[in-house]
Amino acid sequence: MSDALVAALTDLAALLGPRLSTAPAVLAQHAQSESLIRAGAPQAVAFPETTAEVSRIAQICHRHRLPMTGWGAGTSLEGHALPLRGGVTIDFSRMDALLSVDVDDMRARLQPGLTREALNTQLRATGLFFPVDPGANASLGGMAMTRASGTTAVRYGTMRDNVLALEVVLADGQIIRTGSAAPKSSAGYDLTALMVGSEGTLGLVTELTLRLHGQPEAVSAAACAFPDLASAVECVIATIQTGIPMARIEFLDEATVAACNAHSGLALPLAPLLLVEFHGSPRGVKEDAARFGSIAAEFGSQGFDWASQQEDRTRLWKMRHAAYPAILATRPGAKAIVTDVCVPISRLAEAVTETRADIDDSPLPGPILGHVGDGNFHAILLVDPNDPSEVAVAKRLANRMAERALRLGGTISGEHGIGIGKLALMPQEHGQAWAVMAAIKRALDPHNLLNPGKLVPGR
Amino acid sequence: MSDALVAALTDLAALLGPRLSTAPAVLAQHAQSESLIRAGAPQAVAFPETTAEVSRIAQICHRHRLPMTGWGAGTSLEGHALPLRGGVTIDFSRMDALLSVDVDDMRARLQPGLTREALNTQLRATGLFFPVDPGANASLGGMAMTRASGTTAVRYGTMRDNVLALEVVLADGQIIRTGSAAPKSSAGYDLTALMVGSEGTLGLVTELTLRLHGQPEAVSAAACAFPDLASAVECVIATIQTGIPMARIEFLDEATVAACNAHSGLALPLAPLLLVEFHGSPRGVKEDAARFGSIAAEFGSQGFDWASQQEDRTRLWKMRHAAYPAILATRPGAKAIVTDVCVPISRLAEAVTETRADIDDSPLPGPILGHVGDGNFHAILLVDPNDPSEVAVAKRLANRMAERALRLGGTISGEHGIGIGKLALMPQEHGQAWAVMAAIKRALDPHNLLNPGKLVPGR
Repeated sequence: MSDALVAALTDLAALLGPRLSTAPAVLAQHAQSESLIRAGAPQAVAFPETTAEVSRIAQICHRHRLPMTGWGAGTSLEGHALPLRGGVTIDFSRMDALLSVDVDDMRARLQPGLTREALNTQLRATGLFFPVDPGANASLGGMAMTRASGTTAVRYGTMRDNVLALEVVLADGQIIRTGSAAPKSSAGYDLTALMVGSEGTLGLVTELTLRLHGQPEAVSAAACAFPDLASAVECVIATIQTGIPMARIEFLDEATVAACNAHSGLALPLAPLLLVEFHGSPRGVKEDAARFGSIAAEFGSQGFDWASQQEDRTRLWKMRHAAYPAILATRPGAKAIVTDVCVPISRLAEAVTETRADIDDSPLPGPILGHVGDGNFHAILLVDPNDPSEVAVAKRLANRMAERALRLGGTISGEHGIGIGKLALMPQEHGQAWAVMAAIKRALDPHNLLNPGKLVPGR
Repeated sequence: MSDALVAALTDLAALLGPRLSTAPAVLAQHAQSESLIRAGAPQAVAFPETTAEVSRIAQICHRHRLPMTGWGAGTSLEGHALPLRGGVTIDFSRMDALLSVDVDDMRARLQPGLTREALNTQLRATGLFFPVDPGANASLGGMAMTRASGTTAVRYGTMRDNVLALEVVLADGQIIRTGSAAPKSSAGYDLTALMVGSEGTLGLVTELTLRLHGQPEAVSAAACAFPDLASAVECVIATIQTGIPMARIEFLDEATVAACNAHSGLALPLAPLLLVEFHGSPRGVKEDAARFGSIAAEFGSQGFDWASQQEDRTRLWKMRHAAYPAILATRPGAKAIVTDVCVPISRLAEAVTETRADIDDSPLPGPILGHVGDGNFHAILLVDPNDPSEVAVAKRLANRMAERALRLGGTISGEHGIGIGKLALMPQEHGQAWAVMAAIKRALDPHNLLNPGKLVPGR
């Protein structure tokens, strides 16, 4: 351990007492994630309880030039929160308070460690909810940093649209506030939007103000099966273009449906499936569903399996959210490489069919599913983690998916972010604009202390 | 004229021929705007026709360290496009092509000099439209740079929400692309959002990709009068909180209504007025209007003046858009200082009533109107431009409005931007975050050549 590191850890221990840990188990826990990706471990983990403490931690790290990596709930899929160069991981799990709910302005102020499920539980009595739903019970700070979205983005937008304001601790410990409580502003650079999706490389978020939405008066949901993959995806395209206000429109290919049936004890028809949900007035929901139904019929849908009761809907979405473990369970001992691309709606059928064919030509199982209403889909490639050749095949498939998305005018990541897994693809997507990102990073974090090695060209 | 300037102008003339002008009339035309604000004039005005030319212009200016200021339609209200330090004004009026319309993905790619009215005229046959409507027939590049919004933002969002991708020429002439054609992305810093609202201080926008929306199946609109200002504003708050999907909800105080009646030959009741519009299915529009009607009745509304026919609606919104000249006409020879603040919806009544009282206590006429559905309103303060004491009174009123907005958790600018007029208020709104904006500006434009002196702390 270098002298600088010892000095820094001494200062941090003086500040945090037992809330600074160097226990091997704690370090190891912060060196792994959902994904197969592994990097180094942090040298210490800090558990701050206040913004002032985060600021003091950053001051100490800044003085001793020690890397800082934020940690939310550890659910990221690209290794965002795994430190590449050691240093201190700042675990926000003790900063999980819902600070205030402003029902009149439909807003909540909260700490970054609060998870989305905990937020919605606490909001239940207000008639409001926070819609962004990436599946995992992620922390809201982590969701902001990844620019997460999920099943409801087609209706309610992503974190880009639902983060109104932030409190951020900068690399040197300075505390800034971005945004305001007004619904809009044209007063200067949109620092809130710059921070959202910055993966902890520009600052440590210590408070978020989120937009809330009214719980819909009526909700109805349905599963509907299609004769083939192309018909299901073409139906999505037609639906979105008709402007029916879908609250969710999720695609599951046949392999995903089979896995879900086995895992959740369901008996969905073994065919490409769309799960749809409508939010609105009782009459509006009926109208929307009828319009969707006639489009689905045109594409050969075998009819609806309606879920108008709350319990049926809960079962349906629980099944959808359990798709990931369900797919993992189809190959015992396997790990998943989860891909994530997003293309223009008009190119979705092309993107999904080509991807399906590419995976079918490989030796790996790789069910496809996605938030197709905004052109976003995933393949879950199952590999034996101890077989380097399988891992290599999966990585090649994933890279071809990303390159295909770029060729079709899309992006290498719809919602999972870049982390460690996709860094090498950044220049292909952004060209010269990647250097602009690097210039911004240098301007805000000249000593490269905030999650160094991520998101921008290596330094 | 310095040697460097002569050399730069020689290079620019060689590039552009007669499309570089130093004619006094052309320089003078680019030294004035809608507002009372005046600064210096440019030393030359360039009229590029291609991105490559804009890039070459920037290279020349960069080499000779000559300031560059973009110019759209000259409709900005805070002097954004008036050069503070001379140099070259880059007038985008010849770059006004609609490059492509992608009906399937509901997107248009266009050059920055195209105006919003010209875009919508060209879109008419497609069934799509671009909703952002600041009133003036501004250029879309200018609207992006100001982060403009207007009457329909409550339903369709602002330029922040409707600019999907940009092509930008940087200070040194490099050309970058931000965003993609996918509906969403989590691949790196959101440079599109950073550029939108940057008022030409980070780059020159040479191409925009905008989100289009389906023309609504049915539209209905109405004017409805209220017994007093507070009732009208309280009605807005209740309406927004109920979640009725208003397409527009505009407030006009009694003085504004009087001016509009006189100017547009109407006979609207002399009372605080809300103009509302609903977009949707024929049945949905009826339901929404009925729900709004019962809320309005609770706040003492004198009933609706319905405009279900296209011609009646056109007259109504023409009147609203003519409110500015109508108000100007009430005091011949006067000029207007137009203010622009935005507050949380819950504080709107407080903000509008206090502002009304403050103006009533002053010697100046100052009708109030605004896009109250998102907490945004304006006072149009009429002054004798040759009477410095009146101008000083108006500026004090405007500053108090901005400070009141900040006290209520709002912003100093909802949609007009900062320009020259509001620069002094920036530290009050942003505190330490203003220095972060300055750091970003230095990183992207180290020689301070792009619209220097604007938006960030002076250098």
